Amino acid sequence: MHLSYDMLKSAVDSALLAHPLLAGDWPLLKTAPLNPPPEGEIPQPLRSAMRYSLFLPGKRLRPVLLLASYALLADDWESVMPYAIALEMIHTYSLVHDDLPALDNDDLRRGQLTNHIAFGENTAILAGDALYSLAFETMLHAALASAHPKRAIAAMEEIARRAGVRGMIAGQTLDVKLEGAQPNEALVGYIHQHKTADLITAPVMAGLLLAGADTRQLEAGQVYGQGLGLAFQIVDDLLDVEGDAQAMGKQTGMDAERGKMTWPAVHGIQASRRKANACVQEAIAALAIFGDRAALLTDMALRSLERVN
Amino acid sequence: MHLSYDMLKSAVDSALLAHPLLAGDWPLLKTAPLNPPPEGEIPQPLRSAMRYSLFLPGKRLRPVLLLASYALLADDWESVMPYAIALEMIHTYSLVHDDLPALDNDDLRRGQLTNHIAFGENTAILAGDALYSLAFETMLHAALASAHPKRAIAAMEEIARRAGVRGMIAGQTLDVKLEGAQPNEALVGYIHQHKTADLITAPVMAGLLLAGADTRQLEAGQVYGQGLGLAFQIVDDLLDVEGDAQAMGKQTGMDAERGKMTWPAVHGIQASRRKANACVQEAIAALAIFGDRAALLTDMALRSLERVN
Repeated sequence: MHLSYDMLKSAVDSALLAHPLLAGDWPLLKTAPLNPPPEGEIPQPLRSAMRYSLFLPGKRLRPVLLLASYALLADDWESVMPYAIALEMIHTYSLVHDDLPALDNDDLRRGQLTNHIAFGENTAILAGDALYSLAFETMLHAALASAHPKRAIAAMEEIARRAGVRGMIAGQTLDVKLEGAQPNEALVGYIHQHKTADLITAPVMAGLLLAGADTRQLEAGQVYGQGLGLAFQIVDDLLDVEGDAQAMGKQTGMDAERGKMTWPAVHGIQASRRKANACVQEAIAALAIFGDRAALLTDMALRSLERVN
Repeated sequence: MHLSYDMLKSAVDSALLAHPLLAGDWPLLKTAPLNPPPEGEIPQPLRSAMRYSLFLPGKRLRPVLLLASYALLADDWESVMPYAIALEMIHTYSLVHDDLPALDNDDLRRGQLTNHIAFGENTAILAGDALYSLAFETMLHAALASAHPKRAIAAMEEIARRAGVRGMIAGQTLDVKLEGAQPNEALVGYIHQHKTADLITAPVMAGLLLAGADTRQLEAGQVYGQGLGLAFQIVDDLLDVEGDAQAMGKQTGMDAERGKMTWPAVHGIQASRRKANACVQEAIAALAIFGDRAALLTDMALRSLERVN
């Protein structure tokens, strides 16, 4: 069967909306009612705050990557949907915490108020924690019934490690703590790999591990994920310099204002564009061993160079 | 072999200090160096901030509960140490976030500066995220090599659920959002169960699941955990009213000042003391099916009524 990005994205959106703990909650609540929630429900306003950020219009890049990577080796991609939506929860938690006043202090995200502006800082901190937690709860609940528990553990371990203290959180820490420092090649490479590329590599590796990939396939997945991830962040940096604030749904030019370590700040605009292209070519080349089944991942890599938001 | 609290606590302290990602880091660093960390290390100042809160003198109650519960059914309690120390990481993450200015805004914890006072708010938010993340990374890394992957998944699922959006985070949310509201029985029951008792029940259940417990044993574990957990939080509430600030390592009387939903605020001092006693008795009674092997857990429940910090 031919898989398209739109088809997988739409399946991800439906699965998020159908999550039993997140379903049915309108209008959004911003305060706690004076009685406890029914047993088994997420209390308000926590549930509203989680839904608010999770359901902002997004590309669903990471869940689609997991499904598409699993589909390199197996047909029943619907069966790994819990792991796919967990990736979007982890991504969203990182954005909610990143936007906080003590970190990037952003008021807008995807054209809407950031979580702490909409719900207050205390709820936003807890909603970030809650999304991260729900990601693991969702994956582990699926793993309870898995016919391949060892594969499930390997996939979750990969995700935890790449989202974690030597992965995404490591990159975020240096991104924040080195604001205003003189950018250098080694640091911008480190920050981009960990802040962004690790959480783009994680779904690729997790998808492959869930499908029972061998070492050679996993190595190819790692090259693809790292290449796509670095290209993605360089394009992000370029969009902050040259992009359209309207299309982006947030203010541009903020990286320079904050003294962020960006690829263009170290290497210049032209070299950054060339590097993004080279990364994408390297990513695509790694997919060769998967033959025709890699059409969607190839297309996603190419399109990452053309995005406007 | 006869197990004592001090012996298990000391094994937990050693295992935390020996964690490969946390070892060897003195003095504490509060800024990021201008070069990336060696591959595989947690970058500074994140690692220092994690170590700072994790290595404050603590009771290590939750990890000891996991080891002691596992030991109800099996002798090789050292083999589940990664799950035990993960519980302490989760507990510590919750304290670091709870102390933040937007939540309880505490300057002191265990007699020392809170994480955000010592390291800054941005590092404290990330250090909390990092401790939570490292908990799952540590457990999943152990689970990769487990001879009982299904047991490992069940234990981690239990921990994720009870630490999560219907567990500890649910309780924390209402604890914060209902400050100043009129306390009532249903709400204080909900908050205490989830904010505290869930993360005391989690290690008991996880220990039993890792040891392959049957349904009847798991039910007994749940009763024990819930009873001990509720008693623990009621004693906490009483210590905030009547305790010694010196022994506590933090200011007392803060619950009343903040308008927190506490057991004494709803039921009064005498009834609270009676309730804590009754909870402990119920917890101990549930241990009967484990016979002599439950001596340590029985003792821990009794001692929870006498603690001064």
